[in-house]
Amino acid sequence: MPEASKTTPEVTLDEIVALCKRRGFVFQASEIYGGLASTYDYGHYGVLLKNNVKAEWWRAMVGERDDIVALDSAILQHPRVWEASGHLAGFTDPLVDCRTCKLRFRADDLENAQCGRKPSLHPGEHSECDLTDPRQFNLMFKTHMGPVEEDAAVAYLRPETAQGIFINFKNVVQFARRKPPFGIAQVGKSFRNEITPGNFVFRTREFEQMEMEFFVPPAEAQTWFEYWLDERERWYTDLGVRPDYLRLREHPPEELSHYSSATSDIEYLFPIGWSELEGIANRGDFDLTQHAKFSGEKLEYFDQERGEAYVPHVIEPAAGADRAALAFIVDAYDTDEFEGRKRTVLRLHPRLAPVKAAVLPLVSKAGMPERAREIYEDVRSRVPAEYDEGGSIGKRYRRQDEIGTPWGITVDGQTLEDGTVTLRDRDSLEQERVQAEEIADRLAAKLAEPWQSPKLAA
Amino acid sequence: MPEASKTTPEVTLDEIVALCKRRGFVFQASEIYGGLASTYDYGHYGVLLKNNVKAEWWRAMVGERDDIVALDSAILQHPRVWEASGHLAGFTDPLVDCRTCKLRFRADDLENAQCGRKPSLHPGEHSECDLTDPRQFNLMFKTHMGPVEEDAAVAYLRPETAQGIFINFKNVVQFARRKPPFGIAQVGKSFRNEITPGNFVFRTREFEQMEMEFFVPPAEAQTWFEYWLDERERWYTDLGVRPDYLRLREHPPEELSHYSSATSDIEYLFPIGWSELEGIANRGDFDLTQHAKFSGEKLEYFDQERGEAYVPHVIEPAAGADRAALAFIVDAYDTDEFEGRKRTVLRLHPRLAPVKAAVLPLVSKAGMPERAREIYEDVRSRVPAEYDEGGSIGKRYRRQDEIGTPWGITVDGQTLEDGTVTLRDRDSLEQERVQAEEIADRLAAKLAEPWQSPKLAA
Repeated sequence: MPEASKTTPEVTLDEIVALCKRRGFVFQASEIYGGLASTYDYGHYGVLLKNNVKAEWWRAMVGERDDIVALDSAILQHPRVWEASGHLAGFTDPLVDCRTCKLRFRADDLENAQCGRKPSLHPGEHSECDLTDPRQFNLMFKTHMGPVEEDAAVAYLRPETAQGIFINFKNVVQFARRKPPFGIAQVGKSFRNEITPGNFVFRTREFEQMEMEFFVPPAEAQTWFEYWLDERERWYTDLGVRPDYLRLREHPPEELSHYSSATSDIEYLFPIGWSELEGIANRGDFDLTQHAKFSGEKLEYFDQERGEAYVPHVIEPAAGADRAALAFIVDAYDTDEFEGRKRTVLRLHPRLAPVKAAVLPLVSKAGMPERAREIYEDVRSRVPAEYDEGGSIGKRYRRQDEIGTPWGITVDGQTLEDGTVTLRDRDSLEQERVQAEEIADRLAAKLAEPWQSPKLAA
Repeated sequence: MPEASKTTPEVTLDEIVALCKRRGFVFQASEIYGGLASTYDYGHYGVLLKNNVKAEWWRAMVGERDDIVALDSAILQHPRVWEASGHLAGFTDPLVDCRTCKLRFRADDLENAQCGRKPSLHPGEHSECDLTDPRQFNLMFKTHMGPVEEDAAVAYLRPETAQGIFINFKNVVQFARRKPPFGIAQVGKSFRNEITPGNFVFRTREFEQMEMEFFVPPAEAQTWFEYWLDERERWYTDLGVRPDYLRLREHPPEELSHYSSATSDIEYLFPIGWSELEGIANRGDFDLTQHAKFSGEKLEYFDQERGEAYVPHVIEPAAGADRAALAFIVDAYDTDEFEGRKRTVLRLHPRLAPVKAAVLPLVSKAGMPERAREIYEDVRSRVPAEYDEGGSIGKRYRRQDEIGTPWGITVDGQTLEDGTVTLRDRDSLEQERVQAEEIADRLAAKLAEPWQSPKLAA
């Protein structure tokens, strides 16, 4: 990955949040009840965009590969899973209470505490708050299965999808007949009872992960670690993210998780600064060894050629669907001036765009809506499309620009005469006349072409 | 819907469970830890099948319609949502404890209690157990947000996705500019702390719903209720479910939920007998009225033409993704005899089949694997496909039959001479020779054709 060359975000988080609300991408959850802290609902275009993000991940990880199989494990698993994984004992944040303001903070993040009194635990600093000693709080959401709240029935909402993969390793080897190197991929919700969530959908207590665990012979671990670093970075740039807004950050030894022998984050220059987009970890044999120990099952692979059994090592690219969607929106966000007015436009990769084409009659009369409807039906049989006849044509274009629709098809008077429509490009704003019956094929073909952000050239 | 004509299931649940495990569709969750009651993990083919089920629902509900928008609301919502919806007070089951065997049962379902002592609450029957009086237990999973377990931070895992839709009604009207009749569709996990889950994935505590709430002018409610009954039944039959294994059951007044003025279930003849596949309810204005009352927000639609505001009524088709997938598997399950041996085959609609085509070299030599690989790459650029060269050709076909792959493509000696492959049909078992380069187009075209179960003709 080339050295990142950018240092300043181009857009503020407020601008992103405003667009997301205005165009119905993302709403605060439980909004009519005053909201629920750091919880969000995806509206129409947000769902379509996030579905496209997940579909592209799925295509790259499962659809186009022979060495990765799919899994969808339950959110609720046996409590022993979290004992073995280390989450029950170690997935904690240190918290302090302030006896003065009665609030609770992360002891390791007091500089960001929502308190004007400058709480501090550093001996050298003067704290204006009266803080308790730090205590460890587990970040897993706890609940109870069955009708009684008793210890035997305690269950946890998974804090990561990865463990569901490890505990199915044996099933996949046995029933899907896989041998290392092979991977298991899964997309699904995870839950972390974060003390300080925030920054819109960047860090939320409920979030969707796209995780893949790649099981390899121990000697090949480093090679595959580097392979997946490259693959995952390319996934983002192939989908249009500008390389100089991406960088790789290697975790120093003191920052490594207990299970990891090496971790690198792919970071993106979010409006909040450089932040983790995806982590790629070499988990070694930690997980399979732990689950073998706690379950009493042999979790190893018997190599028939060599006549020996071994515990595979694991390389894990772990991405967040919400965070990836946010990065794609941020990277695509742009403004320019058109016909004397400021225009906001999402220059999304066409494959990520919620709507690929908008079919618009120039005016709502003279047979144009009827002809536009016919063309719309034809187009959306091939690519996701939208029909819109409300308001001025300029206003309708601006609406489509804001949701990132790459192509606009306008039906006008000439259409009724010679059968051509105008095909408008979201980014170049060029318009050309095309025979209506060729539009669907043409857009389907365009969608399959490589693409790069027009912001790169700018 | 025609009167259902079947009375006896064709296949046992044990046979379905065995196939699902053998072919990696569904595993018991946390299996290496002894399992977690009624919780399941989907393996590779199970994920692909269930994804296809959800994609077909999505296509019918969102992709091909202009009057329904998408939503993906959070699982964790403000606790007031469940007060307004009535779940906090009323979503309960009556439970009794047995002082003799120390077990807990549903008071309204004692005949199915896991107890040989014939517990009974009926005055006329002699109970061999010593039962407590029934108490009401809420079926919502309770948890806590934030680090402290205090009442203020109580949160519930949603027991249905529907409420997430109702509380976003205003956002959709405002930002997606919709007017009744319009719908909001969503697919996602829900959780119910059932006392007696069971019957494989038919009833589980964690499950995935496909719900759509259709908001209509009050006078049109009955018309739309009937419309959605027809639409939803056709969805199942279009995807190959045999009509005489479906029936409609209207809820009698005493069975109606507190919010419903009419509900009909589409039932399927599962191995456990006729059971609910999907419920279609006329919820009236109950939900919007309740949330308006509890939130203080106006949840109504202002009809500009008539110059009046009204609270739309809601028609809800609510389906379960797990249950639908189970029904499709059950309906497709078949056995026959081929080449003197019993064959198990899933006669799935091709659009639902996890894999559309298997590309198989007849033997692993003489250049056949290389040619088969090329054809495989071509085929899977158009339709989901699998390459398999392990074991005898008969064994590989049987494996594909069991996962429901509709088409088998075999590369043999003749392929290397004249460029043709054999195309084998899963159901008719007919084989024809086709030019290799025509295969991908041909299968893509077949996938778009209407299809009906060959079991109908049998």
